[in-house]
Parts: sequence; structure tokens; C-alpha cells
Amino acid sequence: MTDLVLIGIGTGNPDHVTFQGAQAIRAADLILIPRKGANKADLAGVREEIIRNVTDTLPQIAYFDIPERRSQDGYLRGVDEWHDAIALRWQEAMARHPEARTVALLIWGDPSLYDSSLRIAARLNPQPNTTVIPGITALQALTAAHAMPINDIGAPYLVTTGRRIRDEGWPSDADTVAVMLDGECSFQTLDMADFDIWWGAYVGMPEQILIKGPLADVAPEILRIRAEARARHGWIMDIYVLKKRGN
Amino acid sequence: MTDLVLIGIGTGNPDHVTFQGAQAIRAADLILIPRKGANKADLAGVREEIIRNVTDTLPQIAYFDIPERRSQDGYLRGVDEWHDAIALRWQEAMARHPEARTVALLIWGDPSLYDSSLRIAARLNPQPNTTVIPGITALQALTAAHAMPINDIGAPYLVTTGRRIRDEGWPSDADTVAVMLDGECSFQTLDMADFDIWWGAYVGMPEQILIKGPLADVAPEILRIRAEARARHGWIMDIYVLKKRGN
Repeated sequence: MTDLVLIGIGTGNPDHVTFQGAQAIRAADLILIPRKGANKADLAGVREEIIRNVTDTLPQIAYFDIPERRSQDGYLRGVDEWHDAIALRWQEAMARHPEARTVALLIWGDPSLYDSSLRIAARLNPQPNTTVIPGITALQALTAAHAMPINDIGAPYLVTTGRRIRDEGWPSDADTVAVMLDGECSFQTLDMADFDIWWGAYVGMPEQILIKGPLADVAPEILRIRAEARARHGWIMDIYVLKKRGN
Repeated sequence: MTDLVLIGIGTGNPDHVTFQGAQAIRAADLILIPRKGANKADLAGVREEIIRNVTDTLPQIAYFDIPERRSQDGYLRGVDEWHDAIALRWQEAMARHPEARTVALLIWGDPSLYDSSLRIAARLNPQPNTTVIPGITALQALTAAHAMPINDIGAPYLVTTGRRIRDEGWPSDADTVAVMLDGECSFQTLDMADFDIWWGAYVGMPEQILIKGPLADVAPEILRIRAEARARHGWIMDIYVLKKRGN
């Protein structure tokens, strides 16, 4: 039975890697690395740099292409079929190295948070023995960069997506909300006078940009800087925390 | 001006430390370490082990005693006064080493998540230049140990406390809730037939215990095992994720 190790590597800063992650990289017989995916961030060579950082004897690497995502059949069904397709690519890459007993993938952030690797791994046949090594998430890189606690004392926070903010508005159960996977600056759909924002793009990376302040005041700046950075780099990953004002 | 570095060290597994955290430990002139606190977990010597792991030239260490917490004046006021008292201890410890320009604290988990260090640092006078290095949280150690994604696809999750679950019941905005700081197994106050639980104690440590399943089925086992472990170790740290059944 194959051991599959999903290693959280943080958000593009090679120093986000934990000792546990480094050990798992060294222990792997084979590392699967995505290539030519839709997400330009995956082209950054960070994974190769991380591997070189932690081992002198390079493990076998098998590259696989991330298939294109077709979403005409609705969001969830599109995701489902996409995960099926990625699982086939993993399987093909592993089949080229049948001698590998321990196979690893280096996962942006943490494999347990807004990541599909566990769901893709569950589609493999035969089923591997899957383990997870946690890594620093973009949310943590954001709150660290702003040197802010995410929660108020004893208070909850909600982690959600841009889509939910657009469709459902501000949630009723928390005064602090972290928004991930938001390509559309969905904070604009809220009553902006009510919130403060802590925003970051490329968090943890050399290109990091941080903006914070009353949402109504800084939203135009975020929109402008975000568009400029996206045009300059060809891609952007951003994330933000909103807090109700007056808390 | 003093540089104060709050270094997230994960949850008791020295290998949770990131390369960034290790570098910050090596760069510190002085490390403040709590001693004889109310929380027995802080006595485990993990901090000293982590420091020895990452450097041959031991930095200066200043120990400080964590003051007792008085909560007769209500929860928030008690916390507030306690943070004042801890800030004074930090200040005293730093005053014994006036030559130290860069002072570090090793923080369980991540300094931005259910941790008071940033609030305590804000009380220091003169104000240091505070930076945060993110670390693996107990929630991440839990989801990694269970090899589970915390969120359903595109869905939110709420991070909250045992107190909130007891006082306010299940939130309306999320079908997934992570519960921290719960000394009272507050899941018992919910309609247990509606939920699945992924529970863990001492997550990431050699003593780790994991239980998962339909909440109504496994709750008695969690209560029993938790009480036994707490009696055996003299302390316990546990955390869990609940998901509404049928999702």
C-alpha cells in the first residue's frame, strides 16, 4: 500500500516550512509537482526551491499537468469533475514510478483548509494511506503580517468565501470574518461604513502588499492597488479580515 | 527601540516549528519563558527543547512567573487585569537585560489565534516594535491528525469557544464549527444526534488521543477518556470540530 503524504508548505515563503514538513520531504520516494496549471502562482518554482532547501539528495519528482476546470454544469459539479480529473493525473504520475512507496505532494497553505488534496486523494484507486502535515495558511500569514489577533477576546470568527459574502451578506454569528477565495473584492457588496479591513496580497512573499483601515476609506485604494499588482504579476492571491466597527 | 518577536511554535511537537521561527529564535538576544504558570502544559520543557533544537549558542533566557488570574469581577475584566499583570512581568524580565535589542517569546500555536500575547505586548511601555511569526495551531494539528478538510467545498466554518456554544447554541451561519478553549465538553449542551465530532486531546504531542464519529455515539467515550487522561497527566488540552450531519 502506498503512503501518500500531503505536506502543507505555507504561502510561498520557503521559510514557512516546518521541520515536520522538511522531514517528510526527505522521507518521500517520489514527489508529485503540478505544472502548467491555471494558477500562475503554481509556476513560481517555490516547490522546487523548498525541496532543494531541505535535502541534498533530491527525491524523484514526477510532474503532472493540472487539467482545465469546466464549470458550465454549476459550481459544485464542476469542482467534482475537476477533482476526478486531477486524481487521474496523480494516478498516472504515480504509475510511472511503481517502486515509490511514499509519495508526497507539497500543498500551498494547509491541506485541511480550502484545499482539495484530501478529496482528490480519496478518489485514488487503490486507496493510499493518507497523512497530513499542517502548514501555515494565507490567513495566518495575513494576521502575522498585520501583527493582529484574528479574534476578539473569547469571541468567534467565521472563515468564508467571497461568493458567500456576495450571496448571503454579513453573517449573524460573528463580528470578525476572514474571506478567502475572493477574486471579486466582494467586500464592496457590504455596507462598507460598518467595517474595518485588514487586507493583504501575496502574503508571506517578497511581493507582499498590506492595506488596513476603515473599509469605506481604503476600499478604493485596495481596488486600484490590487488591479495594478494583478496586471504587473499576471496573477494575484489576496485575502482579508473584516471586523464590525465599534467592537 | 526594542524589537519584540512573537514566535508561534505549534502545539507541543517541536517539529511544528517553521524555518522562519527557528531563524527568529537564533536572532533573538533574549527569550522570555513563562514559569510556574497555572497551565501545566507550559511546564513541559517544550520551549527549552525547541531552543536547543535550533541553536548551538543558547540565547539569554529570562524566566518570568505567570501571575494568577482573578476572575471575580467578570470574565472580560478579569482577563484585562491579568494581561496588565503579565505585561508587568515581561517588563521586569526585560529590564534585567537592558542590553537586549531583540526579545522573543515562544507562543503555543499561533500568536494571532486565541492568544493574548499581542494584547499584552500592546501594554508595554515603552512600546516595542512587535512582529509575529505564525505557527501551527491546535486546530490545524487536529485536522491534520484526522486527515480531514475542515471546510466543505466553498463552505464557511466558524471558530468559537465552549462558552459560546453553551450560551448561544449552534450558530446559524455555518455547518462546521471548531470549538476551542472548552474545559467543559460543551458539545453536551447541543442536540447531539444532529452532529458528527472530530475530537482530539494533546494534538501533535506523543500523548495525542483522537476520537471521531456521530456525536451521540462517541460523546460518552470522549467524556470518559478525557477524564482519565486529565487525571493521569494532571492537565489536558483538547479541541474539536463539529459538523452538522447529513451535509
